[in-house]
Amino acid sequence: MTRRILVLPGDGIGPEITAQAVRVLEACQKLGLDAEIEQSLVGGSAYDVHGVPLPDETLDKARNADAILLGAVGGPKWDRIEDLSKRPEKGLLGLRKELGLFGNLRPAILYPQLADASSLKPEIVSGLDIMIVRELTGGIYFGQPRGIEERDGQRVGFNTYVYSESEIERIGRVAFEMARKRNKKLCSVDKANVLEVTILWREVMDRLAAEYPDVELSHMYVDNAAMQLVRAPKQFDVVVTGNMFGDILSDAAAMLTGSIGMLPSASLNERGQGMYEPCHGSAPDIAGQNLANPLATILSVAMMLRYSLNEPQLAERIEAAVGKVLDDGLRTADIASEGKRRVSTVEMGDAVLAAL
Amino acid sequence: MTRRILVLPGDGIGPEITAQAVRVLEACQKLGLDAEIEQSLVGGSAYDVHGVPLPDETLDKARNADAILLGAVGGPKWDRIEDLSKRPEKGLLGLRKELGLFGNLRPAILYPQLADASSLKPEIVSGLDIMIVRELTGGIYFGQPRGIEERDGQRVGFNTYVYSESEIERIGRVAFEMARKRNKKLCSVDKANVLEVTILWREVMDRLAAEYPDVELSHMYVDNAAMQLVRAPKQFDVVVTGNMFGDILSDAAAMLTGSIGMLPSASLNERGQGMYEPCHGSAPDIAGQNLANPLATILSVAMMLRYSLNEPQLAERIEAAVGKVLDDGLRTADIASEGKRRVSTVEMGDAVLAAL
Ligand SMILES: CC(C)[C@H](C(=O)O)[C@@H](O)C(=O)O
Ligand SMILES: CC(C)[C@H](C(=O)O)[C@@H](O)C(=O)O
Repeated sequence: MTRRILVLPGDGIGPEITAQAVRVLEACQKLGLDAEIEQSLVGGSAYDVHGVPLPDETLDKARNADAILLGAVGGPKWDRIEDLSKRPEKGLLGLRKELGLFGNLRPAILYPQLADASSLKPEIVSGLDIMIVRELTGGIYFGQPRGIEERDGQRVGFNTYVYSESEIERIGRVAFEMARKRNKKLCSVDKANVLEVTILWREVMDRLAAEYPDVELSHMYVDNAAMQLVRAPKQFDVVVTGNMFGDILSDAAAMLTGSIGMLPSASLNERGQGMYEPCHGSAPDIAGQNLANPLATILSVAMMLRYSLNEPQLAERIEAAVGKVLDDGLRTADIASEGKRRVSTVEMGDAVLAAL
Repeated sequence: MTRRILVLPGDGIGPEITAQAVRVLEACQKLGLDAEIEQSLVGGSAYDVHGVPLPDETLDKARNADAILLGAVGGPKWDRIEDLSKRPEKGLLGLRKELGLFGNLRPAILYPQLADASSLKPEIVSGLDIMIVRELTGGIYFGQPRGIEERDGQRVGFNTYVYSESEIERIGRVAFEMARKRNKKLCSVDKANVLEVTILWREVMDRLAAEYPDVELSHMYVDNAAMQLVRAPKQFDVVVTGNMFGDILSDAAAMLTGSIGMLPSASLNERGQGMYEPCHGSAPDIAGQNLANPLATILSVAMMLRYSLNEPQLAERIEAAVGKVLDDGLRTADIASEGKRRVSTVEMGDAVLAAL
């Protein structure tokens, strides 16, 4: 059965990095992957053409795809759009919500070849391998009511942080299953000493724990989690948390590696349909200069093959190819270091293809 | 005029560390500080005696005090209290709210003598000196409605993240004034690409910037701020943010120094009345063992002298004394390192007093 892959290059460096990832996908087709690849617009580049960040056509194609590869969205060009619903970010948030991509997997892995890139001491981060499981379609990102309105003669801004038991349960299951496949340690992050919504969160996690007796569940307050990530990140294996805390902690965890240009992510729904994207943003400052690191996007293709297309062998092959180019000393600007070979976006793509 | 200082030892290591700080306060009395010192119960230790974490008597004394010194609250002993309003943390939150202590100053300073303690590379953190200004009596900590209730056959937890223009403005002023006294750089942290309440936050900060033309204001999304704190923390001078983001970022920033046992904090209201406490928690695991580091609490006394009691010279004297004991190589367990002298809580207090 032919699988459908939708590529959404997006903004900034998005087009450059997805172009390299598409070359890798095409190589996979030659290696036996039965898939057709389509492209569409999202984010600021969609706004420029259609006046909205998530055109119907893109959403339709996304619904029909088995997997989506997204570059990145946003940039200063669109920061002045007054209507928040038209901003590039809403293209991304709309895709997550409309496709029900509630399960966001954000690995923070330190590549041994890039250990120097970290701002942390080598002994603190060597061998780091954390999986952050972030709830992606609920919480304060989507809670109602929300807005800015006049109250007692002044304006007031408000958002609602809300989770139902079933929303917590389904992300909890993703995390427990993930922990089961890894080191059987799951840390749930909340602020249950202050926020009622996270008291419920903690309760549901505790209840699920009974169904996963082989997984050791712990709880941590979000402020402490932020501290512990800096102090001793290797204490974590799988971390599960809500949308907002996950946004913050996954970025902090990614940065511990010092090479955010290397980190892929997956966002899955209940049918295994997924959207795959690099953890980094659209980096408008270096867009169009053939400088960006395409590896996070290429590794996102590997995640896609593993989680949505059931092609674990191809996934491993891509990961091995990336390992090889790093071993060979190739580095884009973001991960450059002395004695290594500086390469461009396209050259890095070439090297991965050759290694494949 | 005799100033009133209320000491609230709280739970865990609270009594031990405040005891040393009280000795320092008493030494200040001998050096000319005209103040009377009272004590009262808060947190779990108040709950054990009075059945509530913030007894009326404590609140009354707090209202009448010019400054409050708090140790720490909370511990596993009280984690099972079902009624959230009776938990130790509510003693702390109640004091903040009732006294209107909206302006929370959390410095993250790396002591050169303790540079090794950081998990970050020396070149990344040497000379680090950030001031996080956190709004402390609003935001999602206190927003209504909140709770857990049944909706469509399942339970739903919810909290409200809310700020009014005037709340944002007053914390903004604290931060701009602080920036003016420091390096004239202020970074406001929000999530204005997703949350309406922080769109208003950003707008008000921009408006205030016009009144402080000498201060350079920048904006950063909270996920990026968490990353930048790990990547290159010295890019920050003063950071201003809301209650929840401030909770997370100030703990991450504190941990960059590797010696959270050294960091004081101040929480001020509009009349300059303040509550002073160490950044670290109640550390129940080492409570009662004469192991805890009293320096953050002693440095909180210095902040108290500076911000609430208008005794900057005494403040400097305490800070210099702390610098001296570090220079002399004295270290409690949390900041211990090879070749330095391990001391107990009381011995550290002795040494600071001697240096004073
Ligand atoms: C662009 C933004 C809306 C998004 C988010 O906050 O989720 C991004 O930071 C991310 O983490 O994917
Ligand atoms: C104990 C807790 C309620 C408190 C908070 O979240 O504000 C603490 O973490 C702090 O930062 O002072």
